[in-house]
Amino acid sequence: MTASFATTSRADCLALDTQDALAPLRDEFALPEGIVYLDGNSLGVLPKATPARLARVIEHEWGHDLIRSWNTAGWIDMAQRVGDKIAPLIGAGVGEVIAADSTSINLYKVLETAVHLQAGAKTRRCIVSERSNFPTDLYIADSVARAHGMTLKLVDVDALDANLDHEVAVLMLTHVNYRTGRLLDMATITRAAHAAGALVVWDLAHSAGAMPLDLTGADADFAVGCGYKYLNGGPGAPAFVWAHPRHTDHMETTGLAQPLSGWLGHAAPFAFTPDYQPAAGIQRFVCGTPPVLSMAALEVGLDVFAKAEPLGGLKALRRKSSALATLFIERVETGCDGHGLSLVTPREPATRGSQVAFACEHGHAVMQALIHHGVIGDCRAGDPSRAMVAESADLLRFGFTPLYTRFVDVWDAADQLSKVLGSGEWRDPRFAARAAVT
Amino acid sequence: MTASFATTSRADCLALDTQDALAPLRDEFALPEGIVYLDGNSLGVLPKATPARLARVIEHEWGHDLIRSWNTAGWIDMAQRVGDKIAPLIGAGVGEVIAADSTSINLYKVLETAVHLQAGAKTRRCIVSERSNFPTDLYIADSVARAHGMTLKLVDVDALDANLDHEVAVLMLTHVNYRTGRLLDMATITRAAHAAGALVVWDLAHSAGAMPLDLTGADADFAVGCGYKYLNGGPGAPAFVWAHPRHTDHMETTGLAQPLSGWLGHAAPFAFTPDYQPAAGIQRFVCGTPPVLSMAALEVGLDVFAKAEPLGGLKALRRKSSALATLFIERVETGCDGHGLSLVTPREPATRGSQVAFACEHGHAVMQALIHHGVIGDCRAGDPSRAMVAESADLLRFGFTPLYTRFVDVWDAADQLSKVLGSGEWRDPRFAARAAVT
Repeated sequence: MTASFATTSRADCLALDTQDALAPLRDEFALPEGIVYLDGNSLGVLPKATPARLARVIEHEWGHDLIRSWNTAGWIDMAQRVGDKIAPLIGAGVGEVIAADSTSINLYKVLETAVHLQAGAKTRRCIVSERSNFPTDLYIADSVARAHGMTLKLVDVDALDANLDHEVAVLMLTHVNYRTGRLLDMATITRAAHAAGALVVWDLAHSAGAMPLDLTGADADFAVGCGYKYLNGGPGAPAFVWAHPRHTDHMETTGLAQPLSGWLGHAAPFAFTPDYQPAAGIQRFVCGTPPVLSMAALEVGLDVFAKAEPLGGLKALRRKSSALATLFIERVETGCDGHGLSLVTPREPATRGSQVAFACEHGHAVMQALIHHGVIGDCRAGDPSRAMVAESADLLRFGFTPLYTRFVDVWDAADQLSKVLGSGEWRDPRFAARAAVT
Repeated sequence: MTASFATTSRADCLALDTQDALAPLRDEFALPEGIVYLDGNSLGVLPKATPARLARVIEHEWGHDLIRSWNTAGWIDMAQRVGDKIAPLIGAGVGEVIAADSTSINLYKVLETAVHLQAGAKTRRCIVSERSNFPTDLYIADSVARAHGMTLKLVDVDALDANLDHEVAVLMLTHVNYRTGRLLDMATITRAAHAAGALVVWDLAHSAGAMPLDLTGADADFAVGCGYKYLNGGPGAPAFVWAHPRHTDHMETTGLAQPLSGWLGHAAPFAFTPDYQPAAGIQRFVCGTPPVLSMAALEVGLDVFAKAEPLGGLKALRRKSSALATLFIERVETGCDGHGLSLVTPREPATRGSQVAFACEHGHAVMQALIHHGVIGDCRAGDPSRAMVAESADLLRFGFTPLYTRFVDVWDAADQLSKVLGSGEWRDPRFAARAAVT
């Protein structure tokens, strides 16, 4: 892949697509005609195999086999089976991951556990996170902190080191920032946190499925992530949770349970004993009955990654998404010059995730006009009270999901953005109305 | 309906089905050929409308409209919209119920809230429940109790009154016992608990959709329930949660939030503010993103109840299920006499739910043999250390879901049970192996 696309043409992009070893994977997805979809970082697209798989789950497993499918269709092991398909994407071992509940709920489980593991360290009264972390992570962390008489301390991401001291029980970070796309160095930060005696919880919502991850190599403590972004598991797909085996082993030895101690995380759920005995390993992080239809769709999304493996797997996907994003940045900066866009995503590919954001004063209307022309990204409103432009400005966000995004799509999207800004058509009042979800 | 079926024949059952005003509702469901399904109290059957609805959600809303469906298909309001369809089934008002997460997780939310509401009452250090309550309820209650330095006190259901004193913060009960089918008197028990200063949490897993319920009339405090049993929402369907408006109003005034404070329970989720501001009313019990596919299936299941309304609604459904269960009890007691079955479900229809259980020494093998002949119930293992037969013995469980179960089905099921016991074929070793889920 090229490091720069300064002299690239649309024809060159078509040529890049022809040479792209990953290009056949696009055919695994049912993409709407005439749309350039750059919002897979918010909701992944539909795998072609999903409708038939869900029809089978609904009509045969549920409709025909009914209650027997808990055994015959393996519903009872779904959390582990789907988790095992997530494990290689995040650098976790077989049997170390479960798919369950939502990211927020899984975060609650691991934060509560981490706080309990640190209960002996009386000086450690803080959960530390990044000020611009995704809000639900902060809400959950604040809830856990308050329940334990602790505080949630929000710091600037560049001031993390200075804030890692003997007061920190847990450091909770999202690996790729949902607004800026900035990618944190998991191994280095984890090492620094451990040196300070803190445990580290990583939210992989914006990185799992978009790049190789190595939780084991980074020696992380806990991780959660999302099933409906880069994993293409469908709207509201179950999330996942991982804990380092040293913690599940310790929980096993000490009998420590996570607080959402539902029956399917019990060692023997069908013994129906009145006392909770947590299951072995990561299974203890399961709570209630899995939403089988949504889980089945997530499993189909994950199966696509197996097809990417012989084509170079996550390393090749990461290389492609970096190239797509670099191309987009260069095309937008060339084509939209003079329209006040300002890149807030790190320019250096190694320090960004798989998305690109530009600050844009009338971002909402510009995005609506762009969507009107078939290029789908999204806009995240800024908080005018904040000092940094990455936090105060409305951001145009574009995700580059290498499983199905082509170089020519990137060219066309940048071209369309340039036209929308150049023509000033975004000023049309019909693009001003904000929908409930933006 | 007849109060007793002592002199009934199979032909009489066919005649009862012909006269049954609710009979047309059976056609709303895709029931497998040649099966008598008496396990709808564990997993409800597939509504005929579900496959097409899910295909549309998957292929059109997700596949084609993608991220726009949060607005255009109303995904963002799903928790409330589906909750509003549950509300009339449980005697709750519009806007008072949400569908979300699992029963266990919703129970955690309301128990935590109830404990916080009682925090000012320093003597109240107990959560009280019934010893034979569904285990997941006990596990979650124990987790909440321990987190607050309280105890979970398990009592015999007939000794509830004697245990309602100044030490009780919360009384948590399941309305219909999952093993025995015993139905508790919600209004009377709630009144007694309130008189003792306790708050009451009702789990409606085994009653919602099977009988008229009146949370408002009973002046209950909180309720949760299951989407995949009598509501026919599909395997692992989202659960629901209700809070009396006096509590959500109080939470609004005081700023009290439930602990699983995820972004979709925020007053303005798309403002992405770092501080959690709970949404108004019951919406504050929403946590993360809803599993859209599973939610859509639940909504279809609920829509069937609207079709039951002109036919007499829940009152007529309750009359029919009582009659089905009475017929079954009489037929089994007549046809299986001498085989050691013993009814553990209350004989009086007003004091039982929509299921019937018989203690049976070799219950597991008997049920496997029965399933082999196309009659599907289930078996719940007993705990031999317990004194009461209802708790110590293996139970054959049969659910009578009046939306689709016919009188002739009940006749045939009892007849088949009599044959399995009479022939002794359940002793065949192939019926002895226990599957993971029983």
